[in-house]
Amino acid sequence: MENFNFCVGTRILFGKGQEEKLPELLRPYGNKVLLTYGGGSIKRTGLYDRIKSLLHEFEIFELGGIEPNPRIESVYAGAEICKEEDIDVILAVGGGSTIDCSKAIAAAAYYEGDAWDLILHPDWIEKALPICTVLTLSATGSEMDNGGVITNLKTKEKLGFGNPLLLPKASVLNPENTFTVPASQTAAGSADIMSHILEVYFDTRRAAVPDRISEGLLKTVIQYAPIAVREPENYEARAELMWTSSLAINGICSTGKDCAWSCHPMEHELSAYYDITHGVGLAILTPRWMRYILNEHTVEKFAEYAKNVWGIAEKADLFETANAGIDATEEFLKSLEIPMTLSEVGITEEHFTEMAEHAVIFGGLSEAYVPLKAEDVVNIYRMCM
Amino acid sequence: MENFNFCVGTRILFGKGQEEKLPELLRPYGNKVLLTYGGGSIKRTGLYDRIKSLLHEFEIFELGGIEPNPRIESVYAGAEICKEEDIDVILAVGGGSTIDCSKAIAAAAYYEGDAWDLILHPDWIEKALPICTVLTLSATGSEMDNGGVITNLKTKEKLGFGNPLLLPKASVLNPENTFTVPASQTAAGSADIMSHILEVYFDTRRAAVPDRISEGLLKTVIQYAPIAVREPENYEARAELMWTSSLAINGICSTGKDCAWSCHPMEHELSAYYDITHGVGLAILTPRWMRYILNEHTVEKFAEYAKNVWGIAEKADLFETANAGIDATEEFLKSLEIPMTLSEVGITEEHFTEMAEHAVIFGGLSEAYVPLKAEDVVNIYRMCM
Repeated sequence: MENFNFCVGTRILFGKGQEEKLPELLRPYGNKVLLTYGGGSIKRTGLYDRIKSLLHEFEIFELGGIEPNPRIESVYAGAEICKEEDIDVILAVGGGSTIDCSKAIAAAAYYEGDAWDLILHPDWIEKALPICTVLTLSATGSEMDNGGVITNLKTKEKLGFGNPLLLPKASVLNPENTFTVPASQTAAGSADIMSHILEVYFDTRRAAVPDRISEGLLKTVIQYAPIAVREPENYEARAELMWTSSLAINGICSTGKDCAWSCHPMEHELSAYYDITHGVGLAILTPRWMRYILNEHTVEKFAEYAKNVWGIAEKADLFETANAGIDATEEFLKSLEIPMTLSEVGITEEHFTEMAEHAVIFGGLSEAYVPLKAEDVVNIYRMCM
Repeated sequence: MENFNFCVGTRILFGKGQEEKLPELLRPYGNKVLLTYGGGSIKRTGLYDRIKSLLHEFEIFELGGIEPNPRIESVYAGAEICKEEDIDVILAVGGGSTIDCSKAIAAAAYYEGDAWDLILHPDWIEKALPICTVLTLSATGSEMDNGGVITNLKTKEKLGFGNPLLLPKASVLNPENTFTVPASQTAAGSADIMSHILEVYFDTRRAAVPDRISEGLLKTVIQYAPIAVREPENYEARAELMWTSSLAINGICSTGKDCAWSCHPMEHELSAYYDITHGVGLAILTPRWMRYILNEHTVEKFAEYAKNVWGIAEKADLFETANAGIDATEEFLKSLEIPMTLSEVGITEEHFTEMAEHAVIFGGLSEAYVPLKAEDVVNIYRMCM
């Protein structure tokens, strides 16, 4: 097992009614709260009103309208409020996009230059506002990790960033707050959770603890995602997905492992160029990436995956076992009714080469489980058409 | 899934050579360090000298000789040093006993009354010295949780206590520091790790995330404990056991679950009365407890355990599957050459009744997975003879 550091001190308040603890959670940080949220679904569900009422003793400033694939312009807007109003703490109410954007705002609040600098150089972050979150979508795990992704449409860049200072202080995980998430977003979020686990599960470094945990979390998604898609108000299913989303990417699954990720960099290009749903892009890419990198060096790991995650009985040939696991992955994602080709989401071959080159450079694909060059990425994109 | 709170911010520094980061870990807390350790094995292995040399710029005070099943007298001694010397931070170098004792010292350092009060009423703890640890034995998980166990031989009590203020700030987990742990202690430690997981796995509340993680961690112990027993310097095996020991009891495996524990309270009586090795007592009790509580209400969970942990194929009868899992548990513990009867460790029936009554009262056994009365505990003790 490789050396590693692990430190995730986010306070998780999980379950029904946990929003009620927001006043005591926020109080230690001060009185001025920047409330951030997305397109307004929290107003329709009543969560916005409930939170405003709970926080009636605080001075609330707001940044709404944060986009899916949040843009640097929203970061600028939020940072400006923080500076002008001398904000004490950010309360992000939403999914990964709102939380990611809030992390960038938290850092930009203390930065005098262009906030995009901090996305390009997260090690420049020296100070950040404290962040608390109320999660409304199980997907990115941003509620319990220190990273995020911001899109710059001008430069056609969608880049990940991270810094320990950006770890949320506390996150309220009430599964009921995801009851209104539509089936398509539930499915895409589940694909995102699975991808976070698979990105680190497939690694040349062997480590049993994270791999056994990863297999357990994948089995949980496989068991509960179809239920949540079918029965949006099934509390157990929503709860299992929600807790899985946080643990999938908070670092436990990658302890002692160290590869660069594969599908996320390839997907970030798709949504930077075409603004598609991140989880849909991942669902399309994942099984094709698996087939592309299956070879005599990786077949053993894929066979382990097939057996331990999908319960596939060992077959005569390792490749047969491995392929059965990949087939199961693809069938499962299809069964969630996610579009499974790039053509279906309106993507053509036009930008494949430049997207592939970007993915290799910014995503560090040469350090991935199976190193990928731009031509490999183009081949994988083509398999997705 | 039941509501839960989870917050474990211990900084884990895992791997070879991580002791070198001790100076930067301790520096923020001050200059006066209370170094605590056990019977002196760290002097024989050279770890003591290495740490003293690394910390040459600090003022070091020492409390050595902390017992296995640490006693309240050691807590008194440590607290006195902290008060007299105005200690800034405690560095516990050892296994669970040293770390547990250090937690009690950390709290007692700020308490004017008898430190035993704080073991009886851990909610009275209002302040505690910061604790860092260097782990030398994979077993209790004390390096990443906020609890401990202290023995009072005068009152024949061995009681658990816990408070969020006692969570270690940082723990150095270098598997090489466990290379010299003898086979018998490695085996007992592994039984302890398994018991921590089983105590929460068997719960009336259903929660997939913690159960799948628990199964993964159990499989890791089953795979690597025999290797560590056989090959004490096998780094991978020591590393897997070490990381498992921390995750087994830091709260992840019990998220959304809420039963009182069963085997630990029964064992604490054994080692309070007879000072036996904690993990040995647990290994003796666990399979007998399993057989005693197997019934039509629990059989499904035991069958799940047999299948998911031991890979036992489903048999015609649920009870047959369940019993195969219990048999496998007992065979496994035997294979580690742990004494498997109370008679072998010198325990007679003499105190069974009073120990059982104690266990029920102090261990809350009426709230266990299958509630136990004193007569049940006596029956289980008898099955262990």
